[in-house]
Amino acid sequence: MDAKDLRSRLSVLLGADCLLTEEAQLEPFLTDHRKLYRGRTPAVALPRTVEQVSRLLAFCNENRVGVVPHGGNTSYCGGATPDESGDQIVLSLRRLNRIRNVDPLNWSAVVEAGCILADVQRAAQSADRFFPLSLGSEGSCQIGGNLSTNAGGTNVVRYGMMRDQVLGLEVVLPNGRVMSTLNTLRKDNTGYDLKSLFVGAEGTLGVITAASLKLYPTIRASATAFAAVPNPQAAVTLLSELRDASGDSVSSFELIPRVGIDLTTKHIPGVQDPLDRPYEWYVLCELTSSRYIDTLAPILEGALESALSRGVVLDGVLAQNERHREAFWKLRETIPEAQRIDGASLKHDICVPIAVLPDFVERASAWVRANVPEGRLVCYGHVGDGNLHFNLNQAPGASQEAFMAREPATKRAIHDLVRDFCGSFSAEHGIGRLKVAELETYAQPEELAMMHAVKQAFDPNGIMNPGKVLRSEPR
Amino acid sequence: MDAKDLRSRLSVLLGADCLLTEEAQLEPFLTDHRKLYRGRTPAVALPRTVEQVSRLLAFCNENRVGVVPHGGNTSYCGGATPDESGDQIVLSLRRLNRIRNVDPLNWSAVVEAGCILADVQRAAQSADRFFPLSLGSEGSCQIGGNLSTNAGGTNVVRYGMMRDQVLGLEVVLPNGRVMSTLNTLRKDNTGYDLKSLFVGAEGTLGVITAASLKLYPTIRASATAFAAVPNPQAAVTLLSELRDASGDSVSSFELIPRVGIDLTTKHIPGVQDPLDRPYEWYVLCELTSSRYIDTLAPILEGALESALSRGVVLDGVLAQNERHREAFWKLRETIPEAQRIDGASLKHDICVPIAVLPDFVERASAWVRANVPEGRLVCYGHVGDGNLHFNLNQAPGASQEAFMAREPATKRAIHDLVRDFCGSFSAEHGIGRLKVAELETYAQPEELAMMHAVKQAFDPNGIMNPGKVLRSEPR
Repeated sequence: MDAKDLRSRLSVLLGADCLLTEEAQLEPFLTDHRKLYRGRTPAVALPRTVEQVSRLLAFCNENRVGVVPHGGNTSYCGGATPDESGDQIVLSLRRLNRIRNVDPLNWSAVVEAGCILADVQRAAQSADRFFPLSLGSEGSCQIGGNLSTNAGGTNVVRYGMMRDQVLGLEVVLPNGRVMSTLNTLRKDNTGYDLKSLFVGAEGTLGVITAASLKLYPTIRASATAFAAVPNPQAAVTLLSELRDASGDSVSSFELIPRVGIDLTTKHIPGVQDPLDRPYEWYVLCELTSSRYIDTLAPILEGALESALSRGVVLDGVLAQNERHREAFWKLRETIPEAQRIDGASLKHDICVPIAVLPDFVERASAWVRANVPEGRLVCYGHVGDGNLHFNLNQAPGASQEAFMAREPATKRAIHDLVRDFCGSFSAEHGIGRLKVAELETYAQPEELAMMHAVKQAFDPNGIMNPGKVLRSEPR
Repeated sequence: MDAKDLRSRLSVLLGADCLLTEEAQLEPFLTDHRKLYRGRTPAVALPRTVEQVSRLLAFCNENRVGVVPHGGNTSYCGGATPDESGDQIVLSLRRLNRIRNVDPLNWSAVVEAGCILADVQRAAQSADRFFPLSLGSEGSCQIGGNLSTNAGGTNVVRYGMMRDQVLGLEVVLPNGRVMSTLNTLRKDNTGYDLKSLFVGAEGTLGVITAASLKLYPTIRASATAFAAVPNPQAAVTLLSELRDASGDSVSSFELIPRVGIDLTTKHIPGVQDPLDRPYEWYVLCELTSSRYIDTLAPILEGALESALSRGVVLDGVLAQNERHREAFWKLRETIPEAQRIDGASLKHDICVPIAVLPDFVERASAWVRANVPEGRLVCYGHVGDGNLHFNLNQAPGASQEAFMAREPATKRAIHDLVRDFCGSFSAEHGIGRLKVAELETYAQPEELAMMHAVKQAFDPNGIMNPGKVLRSEPR
């Protein structure tokens, strides 16, 4: 079927008002957030109903047309961008954006895939509940994408990833049938856990159209500290002490290197060093609680003072008010932006077991110092989960070309070391198109074979987001 | 291959010391815990190593021999019992019982499938950590079975089910290949979440030989109350208020009807009614915390007093010491035993959304009163998860035969009502052999079709625990 035929068939199938075909309309769907890829597409489908999604997939399955599900287009791995063939249609879920239900007594919400994450947070809030997923792009990313990539963010140490928030899913299978496990049950042991497969499958097994999600008590108290530590080992020790002392109320625990402060104070207006003297490493930690009155500040202060007396902490300051707290978080959250302003960067979204993270940082840093003279390390992240954004930035005065030429060798060395530490080369950003070869390199052959078997079982015609996560044909 | 041939081939394959073939040795493996089934088997394999499990499965796969994985034999659904054909061999994992690693800084443990649950709890404890899975059979059930059935228990409201505790798995696939995701990572988004499929698959997709599990801070403070409530609706309201007020520290929240107190005080030595006057409904709730000093008792007391003033609670008592607390729990935990002593029973392990649980109890109770004159309701359970053991006991003076004759109609009516409430007919006991037909009745056709497709993808020769969860041939 040529592009013209396809467009007219789809237009009949969905209605002309649910199909974009003009070049200017297609444009925003052709490039990924990081501008790594530029694809082509004959049409973007904008269904208003699950039934339309079902009709679309049944048609595409019958006619072997590739379908690329598209949410808020914030993938770091090109997961929502069509390829260059011009044969794949884009399926935007943005009109499926109803919050179907928020049930405070049941601690659950049922939301459609196109809902913006921040809107889901707000809907929970207006029912005096808390939805914990929180990440930089929450103002534009969509729940469907959060589900499909098993999104992480800053609250994982306390609440887990997106998969941990899911009670049930409504999924359109590649054959167009709708499979709904959209219940709001806490316990259900009736056969295989299919829903966990769709979460993190990046749209390669079917299209998630809605999800029932867990809600939690509203956060009513918090305590936030910015503390200097001698090294990452001390950060790991402090994390353990805080989990114990606070009754597992640690909701964020972020590691920040000195260069993170240097870059943000240099490039981001209003960011200041929270401490009077410079140190090599810092942690930003936050305790939260839904108790109407809680003692988080004295607990945090006590733990830090005890750590200070043993040299586990070198210096530190507690946020005295919300403005103060926001300043700490602004420093942490603008590191990526400061990196971008400062120059080219090489990024690795890795995870290792928390206990060996200090060793990993030491060995990986030594490799970088010895092998990438044009780069400097900007290694920070969610230490509470063992997740580091182990990034390199172009060093001041270095040639960008020479720096970028180090990319393949650097990626190989870092990811090999991650494997030696039993870690993951993609902690929270997924595979998309960017890391398909990495998955083939680092997954066990048995695991990769079973992933292909699962893909074959769910999507025998290979129409769902072809070439993402897995190569279209097994090697 | 006849039984004699099979035995001699297996003996060569595994070594005679890893194979049981004598009748008296086989006996304990032929009957399930509830004595619902009695099967036959030519041999029980008792491997000492993962490599032996691998050799065994490769052999059975090649020769189309069914394999029934066997843990502590505490299944409520006949999940670990061979069928009557005498063709299926039993694979006991009990010798694979090493605790490979406990890592307090990483908050993780790596344990083999044959470890007794209580031993894993103790191993965590000796590293000053807490493993939260807790259930009646914890002194004999094995981690492999807990994983394969996605076990629940009394701490689910706070910590989740067994699947929520899993960081990674080591699985022998039906073809004998070993697939290991035995890492201890909190974040890993590298392809499909295969491990969640094996958890709860009841040994029908492969054999779990080891798991890496999450650990939590040690419990250092607790507060426990036994309170009378006017009805289940009040229990659901109180649960919400307690989650809020305690900073989500509710670790157990159990509903108990008056008959639960009548039965246990009558049949179990030492059980006493905690309150001075009888009431219709009770809750047993417990708050726990790892804080060195916490204010749980005043929080619980305050919440109960506030509830009392609004009629949400009618009466109540806080445990003043550990002996007191144990007495509350003894009452709750001996309800099943008291039911057994009192006479025949019909059991339904169901789950509905927490918010509609009161309606469900009302409507299901009305049905029972109208249709089962020989029975009386003993409906109790984990209200914090929406999970009720909606049981009927033979009424005093009623004919057991007449009561048991009500079973099929009762099961159908209760499970139909559960479906009408968007609930689950098997909350924590799984499918095993007992509920295969129920799954066919209540699963959506699309869901069932995908489960068969998954089974086909993982176990094309159908050797893994044949006839459990899914019928061997799709209908």
